[in-house]
Amino acid sequence: MPLIDLDRFLSGDARVMQYSAIRQMAKIASQSGMISFAAGAPNAETFPVQEIAEVASSLLAKDGKTALQYGLTLGFAGLVEAVVEFSTQKGIRDLGREQVAICSGSQQALDLIGRLMIDPGDVVFVELPSYIGAISAFRNLQARLIGVGQGEDGIEIDDLIKAIEGTRRSGMRAKMIYVIPNFQNPSGVTQSLAKRQQLLDVAEKHDLLILEDDPYGEVYFNKALAEKRLPLKSFDREGRVIYTSTFSKILAPGLRAGWILAAPRIVQKLDIAKQSTDLCGSMLDQRIVAECWKRGVIQTHLPEIREFYHSRCQVMLESLRKFMPNSVRWTEPEGGLFLWVTLPQNQNSEQLLDSCLKQASVSYVIGQPFHVNGEGSNCLRLAFSKESEDNIRVGIERLAKVFKSHFE
Amino acid sequence: MPLIDLDRFLSGDARVMQYSAIRQMAKIASQSGMISFAAGAPNAETFPVQEIAEVASSLLAKDGKTALQYGLTLGFAGLVEAVVEFSTQKGIRDLGREQVAICSGSQQALDLIGRLMIDPGDVVFVELPSYIGAISAFRNLQARLIGVGQGEDGIEIDDLIKAIEGTRRSGMRAKMIYVIPNFQNPSGVTQSLAKRQQLLDVAEKHDLLILEDDPYGEVYFNKALAEKRLPLKSFDREGRVIYTSTFSKILAPGLRAGWILAAPRIVQKLDIAKQSTDLCGSMLDQRIVAECWKRGVIQTHLPEIREFYHSRCQVMLESLRKFMPNSVRWTEPEGGLFLWVTLPQNQNSEQLLDSCLKQASVSYVIGQPFHVNGEGSNCLRLAFSKESEDNIRVGIERLAKVFKSHFE
Repeated sequence: MPLIDLDRFLSGDARVMQYSAIRQMAKIASQSGMISFAAGAPNAETFPVQEIAEVASSLLAKDGKTALQYGLTLGFAGLVEAVVEFSTQKGIRDLGREQVAICSGSQQALDLIGRLMIDPGDVVFVELPSYIGAISAFRNLQARLIGVGQGEDGIEIDDLIKAIEGTRRSGMRAKMIYVIPNFQNPSGVTQSLAKRQQLLDVAEKHDLLILEDDPYGEVYFNKALAEKRLPLKSFDREGRVIYTSTFSKILAPGLRAGWILAAPRIVQKLDIAKQSTDLCGSMLDQRIVAECWKRGVIQTHLPEIREFYHSRCQVMLESLRKFMPNSVRWTEPEGGLFLWVTLPQNQNSEQLLDSCLKQASVSYVIGQPFHVNGEGSNCLRLAFSKESEDNIRVGIERLAKVFKSHFE
Repeated sequence: MPLIDLDRFLSGDARVMQYSAIRQMAKIASQSGMISFAAGAPNAETFPVQEIAEVASSLLAKDGKTALQYGLTLGFAGLVEAVVEFSTQKGIRDLGREQVAICSGSQQALDLIGRLMIDPGDVVFVELPSYIGAISAFRNLQARLIGVGQGEDGIEIDDLIKAIEGTRRSGMRAKMIYVIPNFQNPSGVTQSLAKRQQLLDVAEKHDLLILEDDPYGEVYFNKALAEKRLPLKSFDREGRVIYTSTFSKILAPGLRAGWILAAPRIVQKLDIAKQSTDLCGSMLDQRIVAECWKRGVIQTHLPEIREFYHSRCQVMLESLRKFMPNSVRWTEPEGGLFLWVTLPQNQNSEQLLDSCLKQASVSYVIGQPFHVNGEGSNCLRLAFSKESEDNIRVGIERLAKVFKSHFE
């Protein structure tokens, strides 16, 4: 009996969908015995498992029936309030509940906002490099992604303006600028305060939305730089910035809880869109996260998380300085989970990865899939989140040895 | 400072999105003091809260770090296995893991399958009436929905064939038939075994997909009719049937856990689509559900759930027989949470609802939003899930009194 011809049934969106290289990479990277600088997940050692267990137990005992029932599409009220409080502390003023949508991690935020704003062929400007999950979400919606280079202090404003003008001249519909201003995934770069303000000016002048993705903002290594990290949303004058973040890096990602801050009219549309997407997120997860906020579990735990990643980052930077050939460059992140390595122009990180895996049992993620313009083949992402400090030292030394055997 | 002109930015999908009447209704219906036959959620008294609390506690103690970490997009392996076992018991043969996708409730299943299969303008055939959440999901994707009448034993096959032929003649792309064969929401109707087989024949002959939505299949009132309820998927010869169900009605809906059974090639596409939608579902929810299955909590609890709703359904049917005017008709469901009431042709359930709410403090859901063709204004849905048996008696008597004051 023949099977159906699936291709006949697929939508336009489904036709463009494909596995990203990074997923296949992630599978290799998680093989046992491998020192993995590839895996991008937060380290499970940072999860306050005991506190979460206590919270879960007490709320199921006290309020089990409602915690296990359907809830509001835009999120459990207690979590919405926590997000308002948290966001206000980050410098975002005049926030009310009507500007908040809770979602299943910030990945769902990217997808929902994409669905609200992107028609096939619409242009989204993204950093070079940018987050693969956002690239996939927008590509799956048939967006046209245009890359804009980054300097040490974030997206290059002049290049962005040129790209916008070029897009408009060629008759394409420019919709949105997608940026990760803090400790970007994958580059580790932080946008300067000046750039943030310029970016908003550009968006206003050219009538574009800004999607500000901030999953790592709280995982900073230097408290003194707080002002530098003020969200773009905190300068938003016209409801032009849509902000998203998540509890994944500061509590636990298996509890799916992210959020969107946006103008009330956008939140109303998100409500309708999300309703038909999943009715509501996990009520147990949302209540656990809200209760962890209320009890101060998240707040008191944050300094430890920052120190955890800071310390690993420093060990990685020291090891890079110690072992890498002179021709290799890397970023020095002020927070987050990643740094970005640039090899000499003629080197190919995908070809080298093969040697690294086989000869040195070390993995990383190749740079090209983070680039929507096909560049980045001489780059790679190193995550300092998964491995112990000893493994980081050993892994970087091994990596450097492979590189040195190919170039100096 | 002026706000942005949001309409300029919205996608085609977002432009067609609107709140369904039923959501506003649900808000009224949940006012205190109201006897609600509107609320469609399962009754929280059926949730095995104590067992769930024990499971959550033990797995956080034993395996907290992985339960709180990101997981596989297609679902936690233990839950995939549970679904294979469960589905095999329902008569679906030759199932393997590669045919299963776990999702955040079956609402996400409807949305994901819609995104994979529906381009703007594509035709989906739905029953008259049909589930509002599916109607919304497909409408939000700009599908063209064509309604097909139902008899006492399900969708009318001749009408379906006429609708398909008419669609094809007028040059529209017919893609999918969406049905809820067991104890349909909203009608309470069950498709006969003969209809299920005919439906599959029609889909094969006209090269259409079938989306079989089965959230209520396990909530049956008569075990002896098991064969009658064999899933369409159990007769599927060509990978043409996509089946979806959920643990929402048989465990707890706040734990977001539904599933899709489909041909491996479709599951592969679902994996990619879901990856950019939310990375993965709640890992804690998935593990709790899997462990509840493993410990037999779900299985041993099912007879109680069936009896719970059966008993309420009988009270509602008795009360309808006792109090309603002769001109009112209703379905007699063999399972599920709902029954469907038809008033005389000239009556309008929306106008009557106003009187019911104000004079009698009783609510229901009006019939029109369940009809994609604008019909159903003389119909209404009664849920027997929320209220106690005493309240059901009182509520139906009050409802009948209002109806009698308007017609006999």
